[in-house]
Amino acid sequence: MSTQQNTVKLPSGDAYPLTGLGLWKVPQSACADLVYTSLKLGYRLLDGAADYDNEVQAGEGLSRAIKEGTVKREDVTVVSKLWNTFHAAEHVEAACRRSLADWGVDYFDVYYVHMPISLKYVDPKVRYPPGWSYDGTTTGKLEIEDSPYHKTWEAMEKLVDLGLVRNIAISNMSGGLIMDLMRYARIKPAVLQVELHPYHAQPNLVKLARAFDIHVTAYSSFGPTSWIGISDSVVAKCEPLFTHSKISKIAKSHNVTEAQVVLRWATQRDISVIPKSSSEARLKENLGNESFDLTEEEINIISDLDIGLRFADPAAIDPRLAIYA
Amino acid sequence: MSTQQNTVKLPSGDAYPLTGLGLWKVPQSACADLVYTSLKLGYRLLDGAADYDNEVQAGEGLSRAIKEGTVKREDVTVVSKLWNTFHAAEHVEAACRRSLADWGVDYFDVYYVHMPISLKYVDPKVRYPPGWSYDGTTTGKLEIEDSPYHKTWEAMEKLVDLGLVRNIAISNMSGGLIMDLMRYARIKPAVLQVELHPYHAQPNLVKLARAFDIHVTAYSSFGPTSWIGISDSVVAKCEPLFTHSKISKIAKSHNVTEAQVVLRWATQRDISVIPKSSSEARLKENLGNESFDLTEEEINIISDLDIGLRFADPAAIDPRLAIYA
Repeated sequence: MSTQQNTVKLPSGDAYPLTGLGLWKVPQSACADLVYTSLKLGYRLLDGAADYDNEVQAGEGLSRAIKEGTVKREDVTVVSKLWNTFHAAEHVEAACRRSLADWGVDYFDVYYVHMPISLKYVDPKVRYPPGWSYDGTTTGKLEIEDSPYHKTWEAMEKLVDLGLVRNIAISNMSGGLIMDLMRYARIKPAVLQVELHPYHAQPNLVKLARAFDIHVTAYSSFGPTSWIGISDSVVAKCEPLFTHSKISKIAKSHNVTEAQVVLRWATQRDISVIPKSSSEARLKENLGNESFDLTEEEINIISDLDIGLRFADPAAIDPRLAIYA
Repeated sequence: MSTQQNTVKLPSGDAYPLTGLGLWKVPQSACADLVYTSLKLGYRLLDGAADYDNEVQAGEGLSRAIKEGTVKREDVTVVSKLWNTFHAAEHVEAACRRSLADWGVDYFDVYYVHMPISLKYVDPKVRYPPGWSYDGTTTGKLEIEDSPYHKTWEAMEKLVDLGLVRNIAISNMSGGLIMDLMRYARIKPAVLQVELHPYHAQPNLVKLARAFDIHVTAYSSFGPTSWIGISDSVVAKCEPLFTHSKISKIAKSHNVTEAQVVLRWATQRDISVIPKSSSEARLKENLGNESFDLTEEEINIISDLDIGLRFADPAAIDPRLAIYA
């Protein structure tokens, strides 16, 4: 079992794995064991977020693996994300410290601004994580807060100064916002995490990130498969990637799985991926995506599946949240 | 001949016409006459920009029409745009005053930030308008300047305070940047001008603008026709709108032209249009687009032509300029 994963070097000098474990949608009841098992299997990147509502349990899995000597803290890239309700400069540090306490670590390797959307502050004593609507109900009103991104970013930079965070990063950002951020950032974003899969290949965004020396992490690498039960009307618009004839043909020719082909399409181009699975076999399979190489032609065949199909779009919640429009 | 055009009311209380004249690509040699003729025909919105390199000539046409008593200054919505090289706060007022002097007016009704892209300052004594590359050649290097949008916007707000500009506005902005701007703007943008036509209908952006009470102006209303000779590879991807069978069918049923149908598709939904033509007959035809109404079904048929096809994308110049990615 390999514990050495391929990594890229962030501008800070830190190594950041190409394949990690994403913790979105992992139930609390399964999270500690999943994190523990993944670390045993060789995962060294744990992609969490306050909003995922499982940071305490993720931290339990991490600390179990550390106690047993499977990993040292410094071997693992531990990631969290600032939720939308904590964008006001005065709430950023407290939000980060809450996530650090939940994980049981004293620094994050990467701390993201989860979305370029600032919502009205909800006191963690009232509800945590606070979600989208101000009253916490699924039908409740969404309250936007006047907290501009440049002020949130300044507060993120202070987290680095304080030693709470080694690298600050951005997520769900589009080109115009990133270009603007690059104009005022004292500490540049180290990583950009966005939806990226063959149906939403984002070639221009990847080029822009590279031109600004920002590493890209893909979420929802498996496209529609990640969104069954959440965005079924969008899922219905495309063939699942795992049964797509072009991907199956490539998988067969390398004697690997379709999932591995889809992940390798990203990692071979130095784009990190953070799939998750509740099955140990599939966790191994996902981690093994870097064990073979696609030809350039195969990469292009997959890239050509791009139809600009986005699954994660907060515009569905409120027209003012059309951050990708 | 009507001199009363339909208008919308901007938040400042100013009236802003639904149909205007766009001055992009109008040669200097034709510009004064075109503006003069248009005002005679009833146009009351003149959409100019420093970058169009014809503001002196546009001003000549306007002043001729004023001198002859065709219009009064206050009857005309005169528009200009801050070019990318003047985004640094210390250059905004001078750039606006230069455009005012060129037009020969003492205020603009609407002054846009032309693009959310800040380029290194070029002294107007060296070259004006300065275009994209720092050295002014088509192959020259593009130099980005670290001037964040919030600082440019603050300088735009001062133009209103100074009485040089009645309404400030934004152009080529995507949803995430607009949402951020709304968080810090003391004076909110009155108008959003973007590429918008049946092949690029931008429904989410229009909804976002409405939710924030920002009026929308469409440019390149005729889609590919506006881009022949500039982006021919993109033009080749679609049928010209004027020969599209669905649009022709609607045009015939109302006994109007295809151009009028395409324009009415926007204006009937309170989206302004700024077509141009060198032919007086077509200027009249364009202005006449508001003389009939499409059915809701016809509007939907046209909206369904949307394929997200964008013609104006600075990413083609430099990957860092992928403001729509």
